[in-house]
Amino acid sequence: MYSVTVRDHVMIAHSFQGEVFGPAQRLHGATFVVDATFSGRELDQDGIVVDIGRATAELRSVLADLDYRNLDDEPAFAGKNSTTEQVARFVADRLAERIGDGALGAGARNLAGLTVTLHESHVAWASYERTL
Amino acid sequence: MYSVTVRDHVMIAHSFQGEVFGPAQRLHGATFVVDATFSGRELDQDGIVVDIGRATAELRSVLADLDYRNLDDEPAFAGKNSTTEQVARFVADRLAERIGDGALGAGARNLAGLTVTLHESHVAWASYERTL
Amino acid sequence: MYSVTVRDHVMIAHSFQGEVFGPAQRLHGATFVVDATFSGRELDQDGIVVDIGRATAELRSVLADLDYRNLDDEPAFAGKNSTTEQVARFVADRLAERIGDGALGAGARNLAGLTVTLHESHVAWASYERTL
Amino acid sequence: MYSVTVRDHVMIAHSFQGEVFGPAQRLHGATFVVDATFSGRELDQDGIVVDIGRATAELRSVLADLDYRNLDDEPAFAGKNSTTEQVARFVADRLAERIGDGALGAGARNLAGLTVTLHESHVAWASYERTL
Amino acid sequence: MYSVTVRDHVMIAHSFQGEVFGPAQRLHGATFVVDATFSGRELDQDGIVVDIGRATAELRSVLADLDYRNLDDEPAFAGKNSTTEQVARFVADRLAERIGDGALGAGARNLAGLTVTLHESHVAWASYERTL
Amino acid sequence: MYSVTVRDHVMIAHSFQGEVFGPAQRLHGATFVVDATFSGRELDQDGIVVDIGRATAELRSVLADLDYRNLDDEPAFAGKNSTTEQVARFVADRLAERIGDGALGAGARNLAGLTVTLHESHVAWASYERTL
Repeated sequence: MYSVTVRDHVMIAHSFQGEVFGPAQRLHGATFVVDATFSGRELDQDGIVVDIGRATAELRSVLADLDYRNLDDEPAFAGKNSTTEQVARFVADRLAERIGDGALGAGARNLAGLTVTLHESHVAWASYERTL
Repeated sequence: MYSVTVRDHVMIAHSFQGEVFGPAQRLHGATFVVDATFSGRELDQDGIVVDIGRATAELRSVLADLDYRNLDDEPAFAGKNSTTEQVARFVADRLAERIGDGALGAGARNLAGLTVTLHESHVAWASYERTL
Repeated sequence: MYSVTVRDHVMIAHSFQGEVFGPAQRLHGATFVVDATFSGRELDQDGIVVDIGRATAELRSVLADLDYRNLDDEPAFAGKNSTTEQVARFVADRLAERIGDGALGAGARNLAGLTVTLHESHVAWASYERTL
Repeated sequence: MYSVTVRDHVMIAHSFQGEVFGPAQRLHGATFVVDATFSGRELDQDGIVVDIGRATAELRSVLADLDYRNLDDEPAFAGKNSTTEQVARFVADRLAERIGDGALGAGARNLAGLTVTLHESHVAWASYERTL
Repeated sequence: MYSVTVRDHVMIAHSFQGEVFGPAQRLHGATFVVDATFSGRELDQDGIVVDIGRATAELRSVLADLDYRNLDDEPAFAGKNSTTEQVARFVADRLAERIGDGALGAGARNLAGLTVTLHESHVAWASYERTL
Repeated sequence: MYSVTVRDHVMIAHSFQGEVFGPAQRLHGATFVVDATFSGRELDQDGIVVDIGRATAELRSVLADLDYRNLDDEPAFAGKNSTTEQVARFVADRLAERIGDGALGAGARNLAGLTVTLHESHVAWASYERTL
């Protein structure tokens, strides 16, 4: 199995509902350093899993909808907490839609899976892994 | 599949038995930067795999039994080498016991697996992965 | 010259006033990974610049006043932007006050300078350096 | 499952064939920071997956054939692009041959899998994972 | 003193003249992860040393002249080795020219110094520091 | 001013004398990831501050005297604590002696200063900086 990972980041505000979150129930924020990993069993005729330039551009495009925003106001997270886990899934599912729409080209037809990891600090991160 | 990882560290002394270890048969030491990854198929009603604060506290509590110690004197490693692999398993098994005892709360009931990675330097690390 | 650095982090919300900030004029947030560097020309009788445990505790105490907050509501940043540079200075000046009050003990009497670096992402950071 | 990872690097020149590569069709180069991960279900009698010293030496030996070279001139990549994915596979397959030849010793008989990750920058990396 | 640092990277080929370089006399390459640090004694009225967005754009513009190229063919390095040190100076001097031309705006008038660091691997890097 | 930095590491045991150290008075250990930075105002005729290969070899040679040892038994630290600061100075002073003896060659005649940084974990490090 081959995989390719590209990294970008977003800077967002949000707050959480639920006693378990303690002081994180207050309005605060995070830099999420975001890694998107694309996996495939075979390489295409160019010798790649997916073009790193295109993958980077699609990840940026998905993240642009979140960047410099208060996630408490975003319809995508209405009625649920925008935890690191939930944002990881949101990014993975949006990337999966774009792959399905052909945004990553013919090479992406061989993709088997996608993992999105969000680093919220140097001591904590979360991932969501799915098939394609 | 979702996962959450938290990081902490310990500073220990130890020595190894066995010619394969060369100069590491002498009493020496290590900083282990420890990553504990908790995996689950579903999020709980708060939208998390496990609370990062609680996970960090439980990891610290497990590591406190090793921190600033000579592992050659610890009963947990009597009769075996406290290699990076063995310490990774020790930490994972102690965390698994605590999860079973409810230390990570109701959300941890959905946990499927646990991986503990110990970084012994910038150029070497070891992991132990288990189900829950 | 000797120096010791300790690292911690905060997760904050804020917005900026001024066209130069573009989309960062909207309410957003950041994880600041904070490095505090204490410098001195001589070591104390224990062989240290400053005790790492005490330095870590004082840094945490200063950061606790910012953590999980919206800096737009904090009096410390009233009438000015809580840019990475300004927050770095705020942290450095609060640490300097505590050193002056003896919070870091006798060893800290030899300290010559203090630098605080805030990493706002994997590709951008800011520092404030001052004498003591 | 246990695993051990060791890290080294190579500095190579190359160019790519195919429009998808854009400016990377020109002769350019890369530092590949290379992580080799060895996985096994059991530890040997010394308590290790594989000796870190030996693993590091074998990885260095495999990388020495690529280091400070123009991969466009290397027979191993004749007729195909030396993409990060392809170089990851090359390194993994050469390491697998050496494990089969006994270069990593008796402990390596328990190895189940091997993953090689090449970091081409702070924002992009690729992996190849195989069984043994 | 305040400073702001932004990070980007380039991927280049080159070779060196001189016995001291050993195998690096052959055509090879490098990923340079490039950090540009802008220093100033005062913040501007927006509370910044320099706009991170503009600094990132100017660094990218300077690096674009090197990216995906064989530095042996670049007039900027004719008659000298494109060592990590020399490339660091090249990037710093080009950035200084742009600052002088007003590319970083009014805020950059307060700048006192500039440091460019090129990381050629996880175990080696070089810097060039200059006044403005 | 130019500088070049190379990185290596050592794994040592030690204990500290003095109440300030708390649990670190017990026998424990550390991995020190060691960065040695060589600074000079001019480059030599090859375009370098110092040869990275030679600098790496000299750093390894100095560290070999500490590696896999209990620093409590080393004459170099008799009567004083082998704190991160003291070990940083020890490494810097040994490197300075070697530079004076010509171990780094003619290029090293231009060197102005030397800084050694020891990372004892992902959240704490210490440096010693000296002239040459």
